[in-house]
Amino acid sequence: MAELTKLMENEVFLAYVTHSTIVLVKMMLMSLVTAYFRITRKAFANPEDAVHNIKDESVKKFVRFDDDVERVRRCHHNDLENIVPFVGIGLLYALSSPDLFMALIHFRIFTASRIYHTISYLIPLPQPNRGLGWMIGYGVTFSMAYTVLKTTLYL
Amino acid sequence: MAELTKLMENEVFLAYVTHSTIVLVKMMLMSLVTAYFRITRKAFANPEDAVHNIKDESVKKFVRFDDDVERVRRCHHNDLENIVPFVGIGLLYALSSPDLFMALIHFRIFTASRIYHTISYLIPLPQPNRGLGWMIGYGVTFSMAYTVLKTTLYL
Amino acid sequence: MAELTKLMENEVFLAYVTHSTIVLVKMMLMSLVTAYFRITRKAFANPEDAVHNIKDESVKKFVRFDDDVERVRRCHHNDLENIVPFVGIGLLYALSSPDLFMALIHFRIFTASRIYHTISYLIPLPQPNRGLGWMIGYGVTFSMAYTVLKTTLYL
Repeated sequence: MAELTKLMENEVFLAYVTHSTIVLVKMMLMSLVTAYFRITRKAFANPEDAVHNIKDESVKKFVRFDDDVERVRRCHHNDLENIVPFVGIGLLYALSSPDLFMALIHFRIFTASRIYHTISYLIPLPQPNRGLGWMIGYGVTFSMAYTVLKTTLYL
Repeated sequence: MAELTKLMENEVFLAYVTHSTIVLVKMMLMSLVTAYFRITRKAFANPEDAVHNIKDESVKKFVRFDDDVERVRRCHHNDLENIVPFVGIGLLYALSSPDLFMALIHFRIFTASRIYHTISYLIPLPQPNRGLGWMIGYGVTFSMAYTVLKTTLYL
Repeated sequence: MAELTKLMENEVFLAYVTHSTIVLVKMMLMSLVTAYFRITRKAFANPEDAVHNIKDESVKKFVRFDDDVERVRRCHHNDLENIVPFVGIGLLYALSSPDLFMALIHFRIFTASRIYHTISYLIPLPQPNRGLGWMIGYGVTFSMAYTVLKTTLYL
């Protein structure tokens, strides 16, 4: 286990682990928000869910779309499209021996931008709030990808 | 390569690799189930797919939604939302030197819960079968995230 | 940091890092293509986006679906379903000490197949172009998963 312990003594790697876990947990919390809106708005995706929550004869009309549920789902989907590349590229970036200061800036800005994006999406704040939140996180991931390819290019 | 071999001698890491590969392969199999239902139900997402499979003039009406296809796609999407965080957080958890016994419990329960979730979704079993399958896997990932943050917090 | 540097001296791992970063960046570029079509086609997902881009009273009718936007989104979604398992399984494969020549074949074919898939989807080329692009990448990931499970099975 010696080398595992050493990986976990690397400060860049520790910071990567912390920030990746936080944004992945944030992404997972969207499932709970979706479930909350599905139940309070009575808008289910499957007949068996409506049966379970409604318990009377009018099940079919509750298998439907609801604007609030769809908003949360779009926010969750945007997380999948942006947080997953961050976790993947961020791992490779953390392994490419970047400067600790630069790495912390990348990770912290990304985490903050995704939390800001979620708040802007769910309230919702007027644009360009959400757009900015998205763009900053997107730029951070691209910047890490550029650093990775510059240090490791091997096609 | 010495340190790679050593990583692969770590039993927790081996178990992580095995279970992650199994759930990712399970997730990928949903694509084949979707393709099967798209072809047997004649419900395609793109005109060029309908042309390829129908070969007569009535192409347009087969670019449509089908309940069975959408059910498989929701199941696949739920896998993306849950298996991807497991693979990411699980890697960081495996690297944080957890107890082998505890790690095996986490990984095995997660794999079993996702297989149970898929079966509940596709048959479909009445709720709360699928809900339970989802919630158990979700709890396992949160438990791993908690362990990771407890051992590595570095903001 | 010694062991990190060693990981980055491993040629299989370098090739994995390069190809993973390329396909993740390719996946992220789909967001820009979606944004381009949403703005040029005036087809937005949220009222606040339509307000921001339209700036007159007729906002509501631009919160709508558009065939070109949906095509890009399906392509992006297919990337999520296929590139994410490649990045996850590919990492475990790269760590399982495969032959360099075999690993390069896997990674290069995958990257090429996903670029071909995207081109086939967006132009669009008649089937089975896109289907073939998808199937080849899918087969590569399965082949890596098989190698991983053969070398590391630990349930």
